[in-house]
Amino acid sequence: MVVNLRQLAEMLGLSQTTVSRALNGYPEVNAETRERVLQAVRDTGYRPNRAAQRLATGRAASIGLVMTVAPDIDADVHFSAFLTGLGEAAVRHDFHFVINPSAPEEEETTFRRLAASGNVDALFIASVRRDDPRIEMLRSLPIPYLVHGRAIGQGEDYPFLDIDNEGAFHAATQLLIALGHRRIALINGQEHLTFAMRRKAGMLAALKEAGLETQDVLIAHDFMTDEYGFRATTAFLADARPPTAILCSSTVMALGVVRALNRAGLKVGDDVSLIAHDDVLPLLKPEHFNVPLTTTQSSLRAAGARVAERLITHVLSPEDALEQEVWQAELIIRDSTKPAPRS
Amino acid sequence: MVVNLRQLAEMLGLSQTTVSRALNGYPEVNAETRERVLQAVRDTGYRPNRAAQRLATGRAASIGLVMTVAPDIDADVHFSAFLTGLGEAAVRHDFHFVINPSAPEEEETTFRRLAASGNVDALFIASVRRDDPRIEMLRSLPIPYLVHGRAIGQGEDYPFLDIDNEGAFHAATQLLIALGHRRIALINGQEHLTFAMRRKAGMLAALKEAGLETQDVLIAHDFMTDEYGFRATTAFLADARPPTAILCSSTVMALGVVRALNRAGLKVGDDVSLIAHDDVLPLLKPEHFNVPLTTTQSSLRAAGARVAERLITHVLSPEDALEQEVWQAELIIRDSTKPAPRS
Repeated sequence: MVVNLRQLAEMLGLSQTTVSRALNGYPEVNAETRERVLQAVRDTGYRPNRAAQRLATGRAASIGLVMTVAPDIDADVHFSAFLTGLGEAAVRHDFHFVINPSAPEEEETTFRRLAASGNVDALFIASVRRDDPRIEMLRSLPIPYLVHGRAIGQGEDYPFLDIDNEGAFHAATQLLIALGHRRIALINGQEHLTFAMRRKAGMLAALKEAGLETQDVLIAHDFMTDEYGFRATTAFLADARPPTAILCSSTVMALGVVRALNRAGLKVGDDVSLIAHDDVLPLLKPEHFNVPLTTTQSSLRAAGARVAERLITHVLSPEDALEQEVWQAELIIRDSTKPAPRS
Repeated sequence: MVVNLRQLAEMLGLSQTTVSRALNGYPEVNAETRERVLQAVRDTGYRPNRAAQRLATGRAASIGLVMTVAPDIDADVHFSAFLTGLGEAAVRHDFHFVINPSAPEEEETTFRRLAASGNVDALFIASVRRDDPRIEMLRSLPIPYLVHGRAIGQGEDYPFLDIDNEGAFHAATQLLIALGHRRIALINGQEHLTFAMRRKAGMLAALKEAGLETQDVLIAHDFMTDEYGFRATTAFLADARPPTAILCSSTVMALGVVRALNRAGLKVGDDVSLIAHDDVLPLLKPEHFNVPLTTTQSSLRAAGARVAERLITHVLSPEDALEQEVWQAELIIRDSTKPAPRS
């Protein structure tokens, strides 16, 4: 049963004005009446008519995102952690999401359509790429937006939330160097994604600062799955100078790294040190690996919650400007990082 | 830049009628003109005004779902695979999704509100529970719906898509019995979820048919994560009569099962056989486990695509009734199932 305001008021034996006031938190309504009204709202699912609410407030109470779909794009566990965070913040403000699926080549068009649809109050993008045309596109749209991540070489005059990827991989590399490692490999996300570019830059900077060679470093870029972690590690182990330590951009990839090391008869930590970036995926905890993993850690769920919170706050109070925010990842040392074996 | 029909027609030097006809596939418009129009639509992001379209068709071109969020509800990799499938089908029909986050105790209310909002044309629910009140609730709503899964003990007069969970675990158990296993344990999803209830029923039926005891079977129910797979296996191994084979409801849980077996010095297959249900999560392939896993397999992404396809077809052509569909899971034998060790 879906009721309207009149029916709800009749059910409660109250006037429509009283019910409205109770719902809008007017102090004239006493606590007991207010509680009765709220209970009836829960029981009946009463909701001020969305269309009417939209006309009155000019808001859709919704955040839009575009999900690219294609046969070769897999479900992404990182996205699901982020979405959970978005939901956590949205539910507090009674906002919802509109997800527009799109073929990859139609992504910009789909964003434009979504912005023009009136169905959403704000947008965000993630997985920022080198020379990402979406940033310019967002600037041209009439609704607020937030970038999860950061572009490279496009100025930084737009609102974003990012983690310090460069700093995280710089610190991780320094730890390995301090343990005596000289041959360190990197298994990274796709090469055109800016988070991967920054992680690589952080690693190379630390090598350079320590006076180590940066010409011939073993680096692989690919989708962050178990499979590509396995392939890259297998290839690295076949190198004339195999690495004594591996940096890896995801705990999901680390599954494959560990598998490849074990298959080659090598022990994580004792033979090859390993540091993975941990997005805090509940499914895959670094402390549960057979040899608990040293990680750079930053919660994607927390990032999702923050992105939604900031966008919603801005929609409700446009004077709260959308700003730029960079989070530091935490370096957590467990058992997978040990002194380099003597060669 | 967002353009309307008039501006699009001006840009192209065509009449609005011609542009409309090209977009609606009228044969009077030649192929070259049609291609020019479609290219301009791609370039500009032109979209027939959604609100106007909605007035004209009475449709929102959208499917609604409710996502329960709470601090103790983790991101679910299974959900993300399903969502990818939904997107795959939706993009073909230019449909989008509205996701309403909800506290668990507000779920029914949120569904009612979503149905009443006018923002969605159809709804679906998943993770069906014992005595699930949402089925009755969906029946009372004015818009079509589909159930992913099936209730137990509520009749079956509603449209659903389910897999044959009972048959899958029946077949898996029969395989283990044929290999000589007599002490078989089950690590299952949460006890109140009907898919878990059916899997348990399938296992117990196979044991019974083989004349095996069903009183004292080792069964654990919990969230389908690595952590609970580990805990349940550790507990089972401490039993006075530990199992020689384990059935497990997810490849994610199987990670923890394998970890617990290894930690106890046991080999998968040789010492303890293992069969896991595989939802075809790209992240975690059963053939990539150190000992490749025997599985019952059914793709959650394919299920998502089918759910969206059926709902959208029904919204566009209500004469295409929403029916009931049960998919068979495939039993795929790999190396984790071997003859029971002689005791």
